Amino acid sequence: MPQFLSTSDPDFETQFTALLGAKREDSPDVDHIVADIIADVRKRGDAAVLELTAKFDRFSVTADKMRFSDEEIAAECAKVSDADRAALELAAERIRAYHARQMPDDQMWTDEAGATLGWRWTAVSAAGLYVPGGLASYPSSVLMNAIPAKVAGVGRLAITVPTPDGVVNPLVLLAARIAGVDEIYRIGGAQAIAALAYGTETIAPVDKITGPGNAFVAAAKRRVFGKVGIDMIAGPSEILVIADRDNDPDWIALDLLSQAEHDESAQSLLITDDAAFGQAVADAVEKRLETLERRDIARASWRDYGAVITVNTLDEAVALSDRIAPEHLELCVAEADALATKITHAGAIFIGAWTPEAIGDYIGGPNHVLPTARSARFSSGLSVMDFVKRTTLARMTPDALAAIGPSAERLARSESLEAHGLSVRARLDRLNGDAT
Amino acid sequence: MPQFLSTSDPDFETQFTALLGAKREDSPDVDHIVADIIADVRKRGDAAVLELTAKFDRFSVTADKMRFSDEEIAAECAKVSDADRAALELAAERIRAYHARQMPDDQMWTDEAGATLGWRWTAVSAAGLYVPGGLASYPSSVLMNAIPAKVAGVGRLAITVPTPDGVVNPLVLLAARIAGVDEIYRIGGAQAIAALAYGTETIAPVDKITGPGNAFVAAAKRRVFGKVGIDMIAGPSEILVIADRDNDPDWIALDLLSQAEHDESAQSLLITDDAAFGQAVADAVEKRLETLERRDIARASWRDYGAVITVNTLDEAVALSDRIAPEHLELCVAEADALATKITHAGAIFIGAWTPEAIGDYIGGPNHVLPTARSARFSSGLSVMDFVKRTTLARMTPDALAAIGPSAERLARSESLEAHGLSVRARLDRLNGDAT
Repeated sequence: MPQFLSTSDPDFETQFTALLGAKREDSPDVDHIVADIIADVRKRGDAAVLELTAKFDRFSVTADKMRFSDEEIAAECAKVSDADRAALELAAERIRAYHARQMPDDQMWTDEAGATLGWRWTAVSAAGLYVPGGLASYPSSVLMNAIPAKVAGVGRLAITVPTPDGVVNPLVLLAARIAGVDEIYRIGGAQAIAALAYGTETIAPVDKITGPGNAFVAAAKRRVFGKVGIDMIAGPSEILVIADRDNDPDWIALDLLSQAEHDESAQSLLITDDAAFGQAVADAVEKRLETLERRDIARASWRDYGAVITVNTLDEAVALSDRIAPEHLELCVAEADALATKITHAGAIFIGAWTPEAIGDYIGGPNHVLPTARSARFSSGLSVMDFVKRTTLARMTPDALAAIGPSAERLARSESLEAHGLSVRARLDRLNGDAT
Repeated sequence: MPQFLSTSDPDFETQFTALLGAKREDSPDVDHIVADIIADVRKRGDAAVLELTAKFDRFSVTADKMRFSDEEIAAECAKVSDADRAALELAAERIRAYHARQMPDDQMWTDEAGATLGWRWTAVSAAGLYVPGGLASYPSSVLMNAIPAKVAGVGRLAITVPTPDGVVNPLVLLAARIAGVDEIYRIGGAQAIAALAYGTETIAPVDKITGPGNAFVAAAKRRVFGKVGIDMIAGPSEILVIADRDNDPDWIALDLLSQAEHDESAQSLLITDDAAFGQAVADAVEKRLETLERRDIARASWRDYGAVITVNTLDEAVALSDRIAPEHLELCVAEADALATKITHAGAIFIGAWTPEAIGDYIGGPNHVLPTARSARFSSGLSVMDFVKRTTLARMTPDALAAIGPSAERLARSESLEAHGLSVRARLDRLNGDAT
C-alpha cells in the first residue's frame, strides 16, 4: 500500500517533506570503471570498443560490421507489422509537427545609438543519440530524441544501440529510419559514449550526445560533458495526478500504474480533494496489480514511493504540486484549463481526464524526455533548443562607438583592464582626429 | 612571440591541430575538499559558512551581518563617482534592452486531430549569482548575470560576493542595485555555492546558480548540479580576430591584448590573408606590451597560446574559425557582414573594425558570458533562456483520443508497457460504450 497523507494531519508538513526528500535512486559508483573505459577508447579506438562490446554485450563484431548497413536496416524494418509501422509513422509526424514550432527566430536591429545588434541560431553539426538495448530499448525514445535534432537541422545524426547477444529490435531501427537518422552503430555502454565524444577510426566524433542509459552511460555522459554537450541525466520517472471525485478510479489507477510499471524507483502520486475517492483509486490500483504483466515492478514502486494526498482545496493541490515540480502532471478536475495556468513548475501537463499521460509518451506531439527529481524548477524537457546554439552579433558604426564607447572605456578602467579600454580609446582618438 | 602558422605550410594541419588541442587550463583537483565543505554547510548551516569565511577570507562576521543591509549598500554606492555610475547605468539599460527581446513566446494550438497542444514558459523562482572577490570582482559580470535573470522574471535574486579582509568593491554593490538584485551576502568560495544550493538559517535555497569563480567554485557548482541548475563552467577567455591588410595593426593588437590581459591561460588568435600585416600586428603587440599595466599576464598568454595564422583566402579563414569555434570572433574585413553569415560556430561575432570586442564586454548589449574551449559548437552564451523553463501542454478531447489513441496503445504494447496501453484502452472502451 502507498502512503496516505492529508493536509489536515498535524504532522503533514513533516510527512510531505520526507516524501519530497526520499532518495529513490541507487547510484552505484561506476565512475572509476567508466574513466578507464573512456581512456581505453581514446587510446585504442575501434579495438577497445570491439573488445568491450564482446565482453559486455556478449557479441563479437568486426569494425566494418559495427555500423548497420542499409541492407541490414531494410531487412530488419521489413519484419515490422504494417500496424506497428503505421503507428510509428503517425507518432513521428505528430512529434515533427509539434517540434517544428519550436524553431527560434533570428533577430537583428539597429538601436537609437546606431548600434546594430542581434543574434543568429545555428544547428549543432553532428549529434549522437544513445539508445539502450534489451528491455528498455524503446522506439518511442528514438523518435523523441532524433526528431528534434533533425528539425533543428543537425546535419549528421548517429545512433548507438547495443545488441546484447546479437539481438536487434527491428522497431528501433525502423524508428531511426523514419526519424532520418544517418548512422546506426551496434554498440553500447560507456564505450559507445566515449566513441561518440572522441571518435574512433570508424565513428566520427559528434558535438552533442543525448539519450537515456544505465549508470555506466550516465557516468560516461557526465565525464565527456565539456568535450561535447549532453542532455540532462534523467532520474526515475514520476507522475502526479490531481483528480477530483468526478473521475473513474480505474482510469486514474491505470495512469498511476503507467509510471509505476517503468521502474521500481518510479513514483506515482495522487492528490485529491476527496479522501474516499483517493481510497477508491488505491483499491483500483490493487485490483489492476493482480493481473498487470509488470506487476512486480509496479507493486514495488507503488508500495515504496506511491502516495495518496488528500487536500481541502485544489489551491492547496497547486501549492503542493509546485513543491513536487513533477515530471508529468495530470489534471483530472472540472476546471482543468484554469488549474493548469496556476502551475509554475512541471515538465509536462496533461489537461483533463481524456488526456492520459501515455498519450504524451508516444503520440501527442510534445517530447517525453522531461525533467525528473524536481528539476522542473529550473529545466525543461528535450526540444529543438537542445540542438541549436545562438551566436550574438554586434556591429558599431563610428557614431555608435562615439556614443557608447566612452562608457565602455570607463568601465574597463574601473576593472583595471587597460587594454580593453585602450582598444576603444584608439578608435575614439581616430574619430577625434588625434591619429592618422 | 606567438606561433606563426600558414595554411601554405606542409605541416599546417599538424600544427593547427596541436594549437586546437592545447590544454590551457590547470584544473587543480579540489573535489574532495569541496565535497567536505558542502557536507559541512549542509550539516551545520550558517556556523559552517561563517567559520569557512573567517578561514578563507580572513574576515569574521556574525550570521546577522552576513547579508549587506540596505544602509551598507547605500553607503558603499555613495562612494562611486557620478561618471562611473552613469557608465554602469548606460550599460545596464543597454543590456536590459537587448535581453528583453529574448523572452520566448508561449504557444497553444489545436491540430486537425482535435488535440490542443502547446507550451508555457515560466521563470525560475529563485536564482543565486556568484561574484568573485578581489581582483576578478567585476561589476560588469554582475550586470551580465543579474539582468537576464530579472528580465526573465526571477522573483528572488541573491548574490554572494566574498570580501577578503573585509574589502568591499562599491561598484559591485552599485551594479547589483542597478540590476535589481534582492539580497547580497558577503561570502564566497564553495561554502557560498553550498549555501545557495542547500540553504542555511540565513540564506534560503535557490533553484539556479550562475556566475564565474575559481576552481573551488567551479567544483562546487558541478557537485550541486542536479539539486539546482547551473550555467556553464567557463574556461579561460579566447578571441579570434580575422583581419585583412586594411586595418590599423595597433587596433588589432589591442583587441588581441584585451583577451591576453585577462589571464595567462587566455588565448588570442589572428587570422589574416596578408603575412606582412600579421607581422605588423605582432610588432604592434610587442610595442604595447612595453607599457601595458598587465603586461606580465598578457605577455605570458600571447607567448604561450597566441598565434598568427596566414591564409590564402578568407574562405579558408571561415573554415578554420568554425574548427576553433571561438568564444569571441572579430571580423575586421571589407565585407564583414557577408563573412559573418558564413560562420557557424562562435559565441559572439563583432562585425567590422569599429566594433572592438571590449564593447561587448561592457556596453553593447549582448551578454559577455560566452561558451569557451570550443563549446560554441554546442552551446550558447548566457541569456534570458537560462532563467526560464518550459512546461509542455496537451489536452485531448474524446474525439482526439479516438483518432490517435489506438496508435499510442499499439506502441505501448510493442514496448511491453501494458499499463500505458490500458490507460488509453480504458478510455477508448468508454467511448465505444463498452463500459459504464
